[in-house]
Amino acid sequence: MRISELAKIVGGTISSGAADIDIKDVAPIESAGPGAVTFLANGRYTKFLKETKASAVLVPPGKWESSAALIVVDDPYFAFTQVLQALFPLTLDQPEGIHPTVITGKDVSIGERVSIGPYGVIEDRVRIGAGTTIFPHTFIGRGSEIGKDCTIYSNVSIRDRIKIGHRVIIHSGTVIGSDGFGFAPKDGIYHKIPQIGIVVIEDDVEIGANCAIDRAALGETRIGEGVKLDNLIQIAHSVKIGAHTVIAAQSGISGSTVIGSRVVIGGQVGFVGHITVGDGSMFGAQAGVTKSVPGDRVYSGYPAREHRRQLKLEAGITKLPDLIKRVKELENRLKALAPEHHREAE
Amino acid sequence: MRISELAKIVGGTISSGAADIDIKDVAPIESAGPGAVTFLANGRYTKFLKETKASAVLVPPGKWESSAALIVVDDPYFAFTQVLQALFPLTLDQPEGIHPTVITGKDVSIGERVSIGPYGVIEDRVRIGAGTTIFPHTFIGRGSEIGKDCTIYSNVSIRDRIKIGHRVIIHSGTVIGSDGFGFAPKDGIYHKIPQIGIVVIEDDVEIGANCAIDRAALGETRIGEGVKLDNLIQIAHSVKIGAHTVIAAQSGISGSTVIGSRVVIGGQVGFVGHITVGDGSMFGAQAGVTKSVPGDRVYSGYPAREHRRQLKLEAGITKLPDLIKRVKELENRLKALAPEHHREAE
Amino acid sequence: MRISELAKIVGGTISSGAADIDIKDVAPIESAGPGAVTFLANGRYTKFLKETKASAVLVPPGKWESSAALIVVDDPYFAFTQVLQALFPLTLDQPEGIHPTVITGKDVSIGERVSIGPYGVIEDRVRIGAGTTIFPHTFIGRGSEIGKDCTIYSNVSIRDRIKIGHRVIIHSGTVIGSDGFGFAPKDGIYHKIPQIGIVVIEDDVEIGANCAIDRAALGETRIGEGVKLDNLIQIAHSVKIGAHTVIAAQSGISGSTVIGSRVVIGGQVGFVGHITVGDGSMFGAQAGVTKSVPGDRVYSGYPAREHRRQLKLEAGITKLPDLIKRVKELENRLKALAPEHHREAE
Repeated sequence: MRISELAKIVGGTISSGAADIDIKDVAPIESAGPGAVTFLANGRYTKFLKETKASAVLVPPGKWESSAALIVVDDPYFAFTQVLQALFPLTLDQPEGIHPTVITGKDVSIGERVSIGPYGVIEDRVRIGAGTTIFPHTFIGRGSEIGKDCTIYSNVSIRDRIKIGHRVIIHSGTVIGSDGFGFAPKDGIYHKIPQIGIVVIEDDVEIGANCAIDRAALGETRIGEGVKLDNLIQIAHSVKIGAHTVIAAQSGISGSTVIGSRVVIGGQVGFVGHITVGDGSMFGAQAGVTKSVPGDRVYSGYPAREHRRQLKLEAGITKLPDLIKRVKELENRLKALAPEHHREAE
Repeated sequence: MRISELAKIVGGTISSGAADIDIKDVAPIESAGPGAVTFLANGRYTKFLKETKASAVLVPPGKWESSAALIVVDDPYFAFTQVLQALFPLTLDQPEGIHPTVITGKDVSIGERVSIGPYGVIEDRVRIGAGTTIFPHTFIGRGSEIGKDCTIYSNVSIRDRIKIGHRVIIHSGTVIGSDGFGFAPKDGIYHKIPQIGIVVIEDDVEIGANCAIDRAALGETRIGEGVKLDNLIQIAHSVKIGAHTVIAAQSGISGSTVIGSRVVIGGQVGFVGHITVGDGSMFGAQAGVTKSVPGDRVYSGYPAREHRRQLKLEAGITKLPDLIKRVKELENRLKALAPEHHREAE
Repeated sequence: MRISELAKIVGGTISSGAADIDIKDVAPIESAGPGAVTFLANGRYTKFLKETKASAVLVPPGKWESSAALIVVDDPYFAFTQVLQALFPLTLDQPEGIHPTVITGKDVSIGERVSIGPYGVIEDRVRIGAGTTIFPHTFIGRGSEIGKDCTIYSNVSIRDRIKIGHRVIIHSGTVIGSDGFGFAPKDGIYHKIPQIGIVVIEDDVEIGANCAIDRAALGETRIGEGVKLDNLIQIAHSVKIGAHTVIAAQSGISGSTVIGSRVVIGGQVGFVGHITVGDGSMFGAQAGVTKSVPGDRVYSGYPAREHRRQLKLEAGITKLPDLIKRVKELENRLKALAPEHHREAE
């Protein structure tokens, strides 16, 4: 792809250099060679601009010196993402067509341009939208619906009656629609509560590898539009996650908790069940959220508190050994000052 | 199923309303419609009883007003579980019979009414009890034994020589019998210790999705009768878990630790290796258990302490910034009171 | 195998007892019976030596009394590992040969003595080295390379262009090469950054069950020689792990973080992204590592600090309720001592 074409894709203008060179690769600015495009998003990397061997650099507006072609854009990092998407279509390694070993049940509906890899198992009444790609060894249970242009990687398990929107990506090993963890204790024994609800995954969601998203006991577990889940995440029964929330790896959300929209959750965070988390809130890694919290604030620690307050408490803890000494010293001084009072007080 | 039949199943009596209406659905009391049965277990929901459109409600003994048929039982929540089990048999979506693509090894013994989904791999000398259902893409290694009436979902891996009891449920993606994490360090290199032990899973155990239960180095890893494990749980080699213990998602138990019976463990809890946890103990979410603890108590925090003590320490931490100010003030007052003494003490 | 042969394998000398007995089993010293070999590594078990019914015991140099044959070695535990390796070859249950249901793409290269279990899917241009064993339902994506004498268990997903060295062991359910968690936020929506890098796994690495190792956005994620990963571990994009580092279950390493060599990491530990962890450092279970740390030290807690300091702070916390009382008492005494001063200070 020519530099001039890339400039068009990112809506940028070429401020210097040759526009007709072919771009075949992408690389970080410090190691990019001829034929590669790179970007300058962080001031710390400006020094590399002069000496880079890249053929093209995406730069923010400004005065720059470089032997590379410079494409001026408002947001070079985002523009670089657009370049990556143009140069490297999402599934480099996707299967093509429906492999003859795929087993499909009764009343299955499969759209145009669908690919399903070897040994896929598609049960009765499943519907798969046009342009969706499914990798090998994936299981889709009875009555589930997958939208258009989804990518489902290998060894994914989707149980029955699950609803998945358009352009959803699900990475390998993830399980969707496993039974929620619901038992009625009676005489010291846990009796299984049938989990007859479903899971709904809205459009443009991405779910990482080896996640577990449980179905609801009644009703639904719902992952909102544009939500991004990293790997090894636990979503319990009847959880609702609002649109455009992102959750980092190994976090877990307990049953019936409602997470708002545009929430940002770090890695290994835990939420107890039956709480509500406000829109736009943020949670530091390893936070333990034990009660409902309002939105648009930053939380951290265990139990999770507003981050500024948590920092203050942590600072207090670091002063503890010194504080203990100071209190001892005060006690000694006071004893020296008023020994009879001290005796009396004891 | 008629209301009168439901009443029989739960051992309840119909105190008002028509007993001959057909029940086809279940729903929460606030949203249930005609043809549905619901329940009243929590005082907060009493207000919905009058106006519910449900055809039947399971209620505790008492004076209730409702246009729905009322079935009086001692424990409405447990009765609702019984209704769910009656209306919705466990595997709505189970395969039927042994699919022709299932590969079975030599000397395999398969009981009556066993179903195995497409592409199952059952190795030599495996025994599967009557009434067990195995979903697609499941692997069962040499010499493993599965009891009667088990349900094993898709993409489960069961290695060789594993012993699984009756009525066990294993959700998708779970791995049973992977090698324990055992290495002998020598000259800075870790040498693998062959893990030749097994895993024993007793009757009525349920294991969630994407768990990992390692085999013992020697001897066995054992999950006791009626134990319930949520998703993404790690059970290391030679761990023993007593009967009717429940463990929430993403918790991990390190090698050779012995967990008692009727223990309740929250999410994301960790136990170090080689410790013993008493019967009937409870652990708050994200606790880190670093030593053996007696039973019938509640623990939380890191390092895990008795919960009441942990709460006191946490309350202390919240007072720290104030405490630091008060000590500074005491120092200043004492200095004003006895300046020469202060100089001396320095 | 005879006792004399075992002695040769471990480089030990038989100090007493019959050398020509056949050894068929291994067991702990307290429960070993005739025909079994066991070991004495820990002083606490010396009492069992006299009464053991084992046919042979590996002992350190010293004066011992036992009716079993005694094999004297410098390191009995390591010698026992060598015995285990000799008696129990690694994969007791491995498939033999390439099953006829294995699907292989174009230009696939498979070495001698390779075994691939039923329903394996090996895509175009994959290379598999001699002596490697792959269990059922495993997927290997386009252009990936697996070295010699590897063992890959069932339901493993290896995406495209992954490079795996020799003698690597990968347990069931693990995913290698899933997309890194990379998005460019723009106008409240997260836009996927194509993850076009790879994963490199060096020689003698072992990876547990249900782990997730993401590919790099650009460049590579790299797991160094001899690294041992336990189950359910998250390795994010562009992480580098140095040689002979071991990581216990459920730990997670965020994007671009560099872990040194010979690092020891406990269970459920988290590392933030873009930090560097020195060689030979150690991390206690559940630590939360929030910044770069130098090597050859022990860290614990959240935020992770040097372990000795962390212990001091934890000790301080346990004294907090008492400290609060003492400060209150000091305030009361001072008030009694100088009431007018107190009023003034308020």
